[in-house]
Amino acid sequence: MKHLLYLIAALLPCMAMAQTVKSPDGNVVLTFKLDQGKPTYSMTYKGKDVVKPSRLGFELAKDKHASRGGDETDLMDGFAFVRAKESTFDETWKPVWGETATIRNHYNELAVDLLQEATNRKMTLRFRVYDDGLGFRYEFPQQRELNYFLIKDEHTEFAMAGDHTAWWLAGDYDTQETETQQTKLSEIRARMKDAVNWGNSSVAVFSETGVQTSLQMKSADGLYINIHEAACVDYATMHLELVDAQTRHLSEKLSGGSNAYTPNPKPSAYPLPAPLTFVSHLTPDATGLKGCMQTPCHTPWRTVMVSDDARDMLSSNLILNLNEPCKIEDTSWIHPVKYCGVWWEMIVGKSSWAYTWDYPSVHLGTTDYARCKPNGTHAANNAKVRQYIDFAANNGLDEVLVEGWNIGWEDWANMWKRDVFDFVTPYPDFDIKALNEYAHSKGVKLLMHHETSSSTQNYERHLEKAYDLMNHYGYDAVKSGYVGDIIPRGDHHYSQSMNNHYLYCIQEAAKHHIMVNAHEAVRPTGLCRTWPNLVGNESARGTEYEAFGGSRPDHTVILPFTRLQGGPMDYTPGILETQLGTWSENKNFVHTTLVGQLALYVTMYSPLQMAADLPENYAKYDDAFQFIRDVAVDWDDSRYLEAEPADYITVARKAKGTDNWFIGGKCDENGHNSVIRLDFLDKGRKYDCTIYADARDAHYEHNPKAYTITRKTVKQGDVLKLREAPGGGFAISVIAR
Amino acid sequence: MKHLLYLIAALLPCMAMAQTVKSPDGNVVLTFKLDQGKPTYSMTYKGKDVVKPSRLGFELAKDKHASRGGDETDLMDGFAFVRAKESTFDETWKPVWGETATIRNHYNELAVDLLQEATNRKMTLRFRVYDDGLGFRYEFPQQRELNYFLIKDEHTEFAMAGDHTAWWLAGDYDTQETETQQTKLSEIRARMKDAVNWGNSSVAVFSETGVQTSLQMKSADGLYINIHEAACVDYATMHLELVDAQTRHLSEKLSGGSNAYTPNPKPSAYPLPAPLTFVSHLTPDATGLKGCMQTPCHTPWRTVMVSDDARDMLSSNLILNLNEPCKIEDTSWIHPVKYCGVWWEMIVGKSSWAYTWDYPSVHLGTTDYARCKPNGTHAANNAKVRQYIDFAANNGLDEVLVEGWNIGWEDWANMWKRDVFDFVTPYPDFDIKALNEYAHSKGVKLLMHHETSSSTQNYERHLEKAYDLMNHYGYDAVKSGYVGDIIPRGDHHYSQSMNNHYLYCIQEAAKHHIMVNAHEAVRPTGLCRTWPNLVGNESARGTEYEAFGGSRPDHTVILPFTRLQGGPMDYTPGILETQLGTWSENKNFVHTTLVGQLALYVTMYSPLQMAADLPENYAKYDDAFQFIRDVAVDWDDSRYLEAEPADYITVARKAKGTDNWFIGGKCDENGHNSVIRLDFLDKGRKYDCTIYADARDAHYEHNPKAYTITRKTVKQGDVLKLREAPGGGFAISVIAR
Repeated sequence: MKHLLYLIAALLPCMAMAQTVKSPDGNVVLTFKLDQGKPTYSMTYKGKDVVKPSRLGFELAKDKHASRGGDETDLMDGFAFVRAKESTFDETWKPVWGETATIRNHYNELAVDLLQEATNRKMTLRFRVYDDGLGFRYEFPQQRELNYFLIKDEHTEFAMAGDHTAWWLAGDYDTQETETQQTKLSEIRARMKDAVNWGNSSVAVFSETGVQTSLQMKSADGLYINIHEAACVDYATMHLELVDAQTRHLSEKLSGGSNAYTPNPKPSAYPLPAPLTFVSHLTPDATGLKGCMQTPCHTPWRTVMVSDDARDMLSSNLILNLNEPCKIEDTSWIHPVKYCGVWWEMIVGKSSWAYTWDYPSVHLGTTDYARCKPNGTHAANNAKVRQYIDFAANNGLDEVLVEGWNIGWEDWANMWKRDVFDFVTPYPDFDIKALNEYAHSKGVKLLMHHETSSSTQNYERHLEKAYDLMNHYGYDAVKSGYVGDIIPRGDHHYSQSMNNHYLYCIQEAAKHHIMVNAHEAVRPTGLCRTWPNLVGNESARGTEYEAFGGSRPDHTVILPFTRLQGGPMDYTPGILETQLGTWSENKNFVHTTLVGQLALYVTMYSPLQMAADLPENYAKYDDAFQFIRDVAVDWDDSRYLEAEPADYITVARKAKGTDNWFIGGKCDENGHNSVIRLDFLDKGRKYDCTIYADARDAHYEHNPKAYTITRKTVKQGDVLKLREAPGGGFAISVIAR
Repeated sequence: MKHLLYLIAALLPCMAMAQTVKSPDGNVVLTFKLDQGKPTYSMTYKGKDVVKPSRLGFELAKDKHASRGGDETDLMDGFAFVRAKESTFDETWKPVWGETATIRNHYNELAVDLLQEATNRKMTLRFRVYDDGLGFRYEFPQQRELNYFLIKDEHTEFAMAGDHTAWWLAGDYDTQETETQQTKLSEIRARMKDAVNWGNSSVAVFSETGVQTSLQMKSADGLYINIHEAACVDYATMHLELVDAQTRHLSEKLSGGSNAYTPNPKPSAYPLPAPLTFVSHLTPDATGLKGCMQTPCHTPWRTVMVSDDARDMLSSNLILNLNEPCKIEDTSWIHPVKYCGVWWEMIVGKSSWAYTWDYPSVHLGTTDYARCKPNGTHAANNAKVRQYIDFAANNGLDEVLVEGWNIGWEDWANMWKRDVFDFVTPYPDFDIKALNEYAHSKGVKLLMHHETSSSTQNYERHLEKAYDLMNHYGYDAVKSGYVGDIIPRGDHHYSQSMNNHYLYCIQEAAKHHIMVNAHEAVRPTGLCRTWPNLVGNESARGTEYEAFGGSRPDHTVILPFTRLQGGPMDYTPGILETQLGTWSENKNFVHTTLVGQLALYVTMYSPLQMAADLPENYAKYDDAFQFIRDVAVDWDDSRYLEAEPADYITVARKAKGTDNWFIGGKCDENGHNSVIRLDFLDKGRKYDCTIYADARDAHYEHNPKAYTITRKTVKQGDVLKLREAPGGGFAISVIAR
């Protein structure tokens, strides 16, 4: 058999081996080519180049161990074609929660088996071509010549066909909470210094042209292109490093410079690709290595979504479809959650997570909180939590998040403390038993909070007992947090080992019937299909930044194109009192209109939605708050009506198990005039429509809280014309009679 | 108060502040001096210099976080004297197990409070002076100006008074399984290349003059000096780096060389000390940092033992005394253990830990062992384990170790596999329930084995369930192993975080009433006083190396001076069939005589002693094996009768709760003539004495299995004269009538 393979292999490199596969509608065409032993691919959409010929492969690291696979580090070259297999897949599946009741997974597949002759190592490239893009991954079957290998670099290229406009975040191994930059590809380098959140990142960015995924682009000829990844499991998160005109120049000068702001050194065996090519850049471990692999194994899917209609970017299920089906047998305990919480008042700075300022620092298991003087600002106290429980019960909210309930907050962040929290011991003024009982008596649940301070070793040591405590008191969801630098020191938020950690927590939580909403964790890649108890992530700049100086008004009309591609975000909208100075000493303001906040419940899809403002602020705007009370958090259908990245998004969604629709529109700082045709309503049926709109003179900065509420009856075919103010939007409920 | 301190501080540096404290017998004198703001100490024994004036202090690392203590990194200089406090302590305590029934802890203490004026940071130096040496440590009280700090280097100096003979191991962050080197201090550098176990160390040694502790030395004028540490808790293990004549020369040339074989770079603020000075070198974490500290905290004790009688080095309890008293309330479940095990036949290469060779590699939770072909050499099978249980029951052994009982051994080592073992799933041919029941029916216990493959994250994830399994089936002791490089990658066996891990496992085990015997873990520092369920460690070159090429005959007459200072070693003696080729294809031989193996049960103190050879080999030498059956493993008294490092050790021990004595003598390759005065026997009482001695022509290499067994009656005052063969020894049981 081995000899036969060699024979085939010996023949085939001479041929110009090329293989194409088209999407079911024929618009997307993938071409795989073995170019003198080098695997490459390219991609078109309706005949236009999306990805020009781009190389695929790996550079491995040598190690004194793990050498059963031989010492050859090159997995870029010297490949021979063994066989190709084409197939078609068409299946419709039902998500446990989601934007639609069913999802169709329809693709044509090409799997190419390759053999690196000199080393006798096998690799398969698997491409799945959808109507709205493609995914491909590397697969390594179990084989005697490649049992274990260490990844120095994955050199997957994405050669762009033009100098596209891109919406990007600076590449960073530890944070994705920066503002999105909008530039041409050729302008990324010049913009980088402004794009980096110098205060929040634990490392210098790895390259002057390094960006994160999901990366949304638009070509001059009107193609929307998005690069991301799907199903990142036990593998380092992928960034992208752009090769631009300066890269080659800098690369030549590169000899022993600092790590910051130098292009990733390329081995001589791997020539720099053409300018405007993105090359994958994986997040390293503490030793600089990108991955430790054991066959059989595969990479995550590398995804390229494409369309000439921006709305397709938002309705695409490509990333979910590339993930494995649900692995939780009984999902009856998983449910969408609308919640409020003891949180915003700490973010704004009026209250504290910590209980006391008596001690220069605290020690878990030693500090005696019973004997210290309370600081008087500790928010997670019995009286306040009861108020929030009452508020939730009175307004149909499911759960109440309480942050700062557990001991350790006095010096939790950025001190390299390993044993920072135990996740089971409440502060003296938080009666965990009584508060849960009170909540349950009102039909409400408390939502647990586990801030890990990124001390993952400590969290894993306490995980089982922490989840046991939740089960004991009747919590069914946890918000976890990963603020600060990772312990073990030297590791990064998006490394292979940390990605394994996040999934480990999700899997352990599932055993306890606990839903997870992980903040500061890795950006999602659709794993919520497989583990639907992962009901939310932060992994981007959330509403909290409105209290830290603000986010640009276009922020929330970019996120659905980028961050939300991998899964829902716990954005925590609903700050109706947009001027924080009215109730606190925080001088910041929210960079949307009040109605813009309502719109987010529809435009920013999530099964987990917070009503993030304080009860007393909602009392001030109770008529507007009605929309938050009413809006659904799970859907049978979603129709993206209007969309343009960083400009506007309009979407109509049909509430799960009902005939009611909710429509949201959100725009950037320029405002937007929206025209909504109610074609999706049932024919002949009448609906009670309530429209929450920006007032004529509303403006996110100068007049944010000017809104109108209009009620009317609508039917199929009606057209609504709505004016969104700068930084504004609208929210509409359409209730079937 | 602050102002008052400043006032005092401003005055005191002008004085020649010096403070001395003597040992209870006056022989050891410690002098602390604040030399122009620099803390120093020196030490004499009977008027002779042991440690010449040596500096004390730290260099801190800057960090973007953890800066509440200010940015000043110097903790070497600028100190003012605040106060000194002298005290005396005298207490006798009872160890749970040990060489003697009681231990006297008698010292004079000097505690010096210092204030670094410019930073307002407080540090206390605490010295405890014993008749046989001293211990000192740095203490950092909780204080507003020093809450957290990062250790770049601890610069504790030990300035030697001469070019002593030293018995040393090459400094290494991951292994201490090399052969001890014997050289003058000035010869360390030249010997280093031969001293390094290049195959076994995951890193190059950190310095050409870096050595491990415990470091035994002998001065030209007859002083025995030993440097080690006590109570290393949540702190990196200390190595020692010798400043020799070349250090200064190399230091000047040092600019950007490789990390291997260059002296540790010293900051300009810290001048190199005089030649023949050891400077502490802590084990770094993955980022190169030596420690993350939070006040209140303290370092381990740095110990210097001294005597003009080598026997005092062996009988010293200084390191145990410097540890905290026992923290386990009920210790009734902790007991000494004599055991055999399914182990030596794998070490020798005749059997395997693994069950099958069917797969190129195995995956926990995926590989189906029920369907594969057994390799036929798997030792931990039902039939063989039953034989070992029978053997243990028939010979009064308490437990049977079984290695290779659990799935995952096919590719466990050095592959950077994280999920290598689950510690709960037996191979198909190991019936865990039936075998434990069988063992218990015979009055024997099985001894659990947890090889972690140094994947500590994986071990901690499984720890609770693994201990639960042990409780369920009635195991009460575990041998754990840390072979290979640490996962998380970049960490080291002796780092702060790994030292925390080992202790975490011991503490969790204590909750389950489980005794721990950790192999390849950090060298012990007396923590078994505090946690007496730590019944053993390997942490040095054990008997297994006799199957890997052998250890020098003097190895076991060095270990009690070095490795055993911190706690007992699971050396696994008792290989009576010293020629491995007689029953296997292994051509190696044990570098002692047969009787020398018996001696080790007495000379190498441990509450855990293995009869490591195969039952069939013991059957061949059943008369000699009688000593192993008889010898005790816990003692009421121990008398070191003769000792010289690397030459010979003779010790008599009184078995716990009896009037019986066991006497062991072990020597190096030169042989030894031993004269034993039985002064320690009870007056007027008769004893049955059995002497296992080398035959006249015995020799560890040429005639190792020539021995005599002589029986006689002895009484107090009798003198035994015994000739130990090259590489030999003797073993004597003295049973009261």
